[in-house]
Formats: sequence, structure tokens, C-alpha cells
Amino acid sequence: MTMGWFDIDGAIKTVPVDDRGLQYGDGVFDTIAIRQGRPRLPDLHMERLQIGCARLGMDLPATDVLLDMLEDAIGKTACHGSGVAKFVVTRGSGPRGYRFSSDSVPRIMLGIFESPVHVRDCWTHGVEVRICNLRLGPQPALAGIKSLNRLEQVLARNEWQSESIAEGLMLDTDGNIICGTMSNLFLVSNGGLLTPAVTTAGVSGVMRRHIIALSETHGLPVTVEPVPVRKLTDCREVFLSNSQIGIWPVRRCGTSSYTAPGPTTQRVMKSLANSGIDECRL
Amino acid sequence: MTMGWFDIDGAIKTVPVDDRGLQYGDGVFDTIAIRQGRPRLPDLHMERLQIGCARLGMDLPATDVLLDMLEDAIGKTACHGSGVAKFVVTRGSGPRGYRFSSDSVPRIMLGIFESPVHVRDCWTHGVEVRICNLRLGPQPALAGIKSLNRLEQVLARNEWQSESIAEGLMLDTDGNIICGTMSNLFLVSNGGLLTPAVTTAGVSGVMRRHIIALSETHGLPVTVEPVPVRKLTDCREVFLSNSQIGIWPVRRCGTSSYTAPGPTTQRVMKSLANSGIDECRL
Repeated sequence: MTMGWFDIDGAIKTVPVDDRGLQYGDGVFDTIAIRQGRPRLPDLHMERLQIGCARLGMDLPATDVLLDMLEDAIGKTACHGSGVAKFVVTRGSGPRGYRFSSDSVPRIMLGIFESPVHVRDCWTHGVEVRICNLRLGPQPALAGIKSLNRLEQVLARNEWQSESIAEGLMLDTDGNIICGTMSNLFLVSNGGLLTPAVTTAGVSGVMRRHIIALSETHGLPVTVEPVPVRKLTDCREVFLSNSQIGIWPVRRCGTSSYTAPGPTTQRVMKSLANSGIDECRL
Repeated sequence: MTMGWFDIDGAIKTVPVDDRGLQYGDGVFDTIAIRQGRPRLPDLHMERLQIGCARLGMDLPATDVLLDMLEDAIGKTACHGSGVAKFVVTRGSGPRGYRFSSDSVPRIMLGIFESPVHVRDCWTHGVEVRICNLRLGPQPALAGIKSLNRLEQVLARNEWQSESIAEGLMLDTDGNIICGTMSNLFLVSNGGLLTPAVTTAGVSGVMRRHIIALSETHGLPVTVEPVPVRKLTDCREVFLSNSQIGIWPVRRCGTSSYTAPGPTTQRVMKSLANSGIDECRL
């Protein structure tokens, strides 16, 4: 498999320097798992891209066009097994200044990458996480979507270098826990799942949505609300989710230890595995 | 004069698609006025670029190298009169993921643009501004610097289309007024100047710094502190500042009207004009 970037016309290596994605972070992105040469959960990912573009007032081509582009890129990179596809959609080129034209033409870029390699232990025995110092600033206009304004995550991820820490959890300025730098967070609480609301900060991840929908289908209640950080010390099971990993149980966060994976997490992982998220097969 | 973009080696039209500026907004920018073919306030701008890069943990070449690059670009674009130079400095190319390498090599881009055209009335009779709906989220890690994460400003600037509104003022989530989408804000209050602190949101503009220093030199006291939005209705003079305009008096904001330019604003404009900010010569 060869990595590569593509636009709607074929392979690219560069973008125009006046692209508003570079100049202002004016755009969104989305990262899709490729398994057996096929995009996983494509409908949820396409919906998320459309929602993100709509929030920024950008037009995005029809889902069919995007999926054709993705299939084409998978073919050209001979990605027959596992990989990562990353769509980057910007408001395109424009003159200097924050003001944009309503007829600006979005630029769509698609990168195909090799899958990151993680030891099997991440799923079977859980991962260690830390709490980041940097707090997420509340911004309802951007919360939930994966905009290209990601400096908070960049700075938070670079607070630690130890390879033994798999992820950093991020709080907001009110002391609520929101998400990881690249993942969503679930706590097992009161016999159900509890996941932080992402209406003022954080990302509404595709795997998070998939887990919420699956759990409700299987009779496991899910509460979505602000989660004070002290709840992390009150519960026995915590797990992370994202599109690439499915679920990683958390076995330690600072001085708190958790059963990893605990019984409820195992139940969720089993239903995920049955839905085609193969990494979660224990 | 021909507009154009440059890097350290010469003219460019594109940047690599894996640049972290595009992928994450991982970088800073700075916009410098060119007058009579020379950069204005170069030392303050170079200092600001260095401060911004340091906050993001990026190395930036020595100021001499940047100023040589600027002089070269001004020559190549034959910008003998007025213009705008925009430095964009990103963390350079890198692999996928928020984590960055401590030996990443910043990418420096420099655009030369024509000066925007404004009617003389903006200085002599002031401008009308509005209050934006979008609130700035507090983020001390990024406040003060001009990072490439500018979606808040993009969305705020596009709340209005009327050409009669010159600028939008932005509040933070506590109801303090912070700055304009592309300018800083000063109120005349208690016989001195009052300008919002930019420690949790907003940009520490070069012209703002220049005005603060000049005013203090001339015995006009300047207070820098959080400014509740109601203060806008309690004062008689308000003005905006940025590198390109120097100062624009504000004559109206919503239902509030101001003397534009009032006596204190005129005094500041005069000292700015005497320091070489020619637009402020009334």
C-alpha cells in the first residue's frame, strides 16, 4: 500500500497557499477507518462531514461524489486491507480577510494512510491515560464538529512524551471532563453509560454516536450530560472511543484504577464487534 | 505592483498538503503594513512573531533572516508604495496526528498584497461598528497571539454583510468586550485610555502595543483590564486600532453614538501620526 493525497481530479502533493484552510483553519476534517479495503461506517462519516460544513456555512458535494472519491483513492493506493482515510474540506481559495464569499468553492482533499499499529493489550488490558493541563475553551459555534482549528489538541497532546500514556483527557474551564485529545470518553455509571455532552467543547465522534445508538438498541441506557471530573474517581469502568480503535478500556488515570475491560465495557465491546468493529472482538 | 507569495527560496504558489498549518491550524501569522516600500514597525512585528512561535513551542529563524526575506519580497513585487505583508509560519510538514516532533522545521510563507482601500472618512468622521453574536471562548494558551486558528473571527466577520458596518466587536463568555474581528479596541475613560486585557482571548496587536507605549510616554494613562460591555455605553470616545489603519474612531455602535474623533482620540492620533503612522494625520 502506498500512502497518498488526492483531490477530486487525482493525486496531489500541494495545495494553493491562499487556501483558507491554511490561512485560518477555515474548514473541517474527518478520519475514516478502512478495513478489508472498505470504509467503515461511511454513512455516519458522510453525515458528520455534511454537518460540519453546514455549521461553517460551506457547501459540500453530495455524499456519492465523496464516496466515489474515497473508493478511487483506495484503489489507487492499493489499500486492500486496513488503513486510514482523512478528508480535509476547506472553504477553498479566497482573498485576504476573514470575510468569505457565499459562492466560495470548497476544496476537498483526501489522504490515505497506513493504520497506526497498537499492541493488542490496548483492547484486552486497557490503556493508561492522564489529565491534560490545558483546558478546552467553551465555543458552542465549533463544539461537536471536527474543525481545522485544532491547536488546543496539538498543545494538549504535546504535554506528555511517555509512550506508556496512550491518551490525555481534557477538561473544560468549568472542570467538566469533555473528551480525549483524539477520542471520546465513556464512564460506566448507575448501570448504564455516561458520556460528556459536547455542546460547548469537544467532538461528537462517529464511534461515540455508533456506541450510543448500539447501546440504546441493546437496552443499555446512555446519559449524555456535563460530567464533573470527580466522577472519574467514582466509577469502576471507563473507556475511550474513536473511529480507528473502536473502544479502548482505561485501566488507569492518575491515581485512579479501573477494571479494564470491566463487565459493562465488555458488553459494549461485544456489541461493537458484532456490528463489524473487529478490533473490539476480545 | 504584483501580489505574490514567497518562501525562503523565492516565489511559491502552493504548500505541501501535509503542512500542519493546513491540517491543524498549527502556526501563527502576522500582518505588516508596507509604506513607501518599507515595513512599518518591523521590530514590534518581529517580536510578536517570535512570541507567537515560542508559545506554540516552534523555533523561528532569526529576525534578520525574516527581514531579509521581507525586503526581498518587497523588491520582487515592486511594492514601492503601500502594501500589506503577511507572514504565515507553520510547524511545517509532519506525519498524521496531533503529536509533533521537537525537531520539526517551521515553514515560513510571506504574502505581499495591495493595501485595502478605505475612504478618508473612516479617520476623519469615524466608523460604525456592531456587536457580534459569537462569543470568544476563553483560552489563555492561545490568547494574545495570532494563531492560525481563526474560525471564531471568520464566523463573527460573516455575521453581517452591510458595507456600512466597518467592524464587529467581540465579547467573551463573561460579557466582557475583548476586541474587533481584526482590530483592538480602546475606550476613553476617566481621562485616560482603557483597553481590554487579552490574557484569556483576543490578540495583542502591534498597533495596540504601539499606542499603549506612545500614550504612556505622552502622559496619557492607559488601563489594561477586563472591560464589561456596559462600559461602551458609559463613554464618549471609542476607537479601533490595527497595523493597517492605525486608528479608526468609532462614531456609532448599535444605539450608542460617540464623538469621532473626540479630543482624546485626536490627541492619540496626532502622536501616532508624529511617530510615522501617516493615516492618522487629520
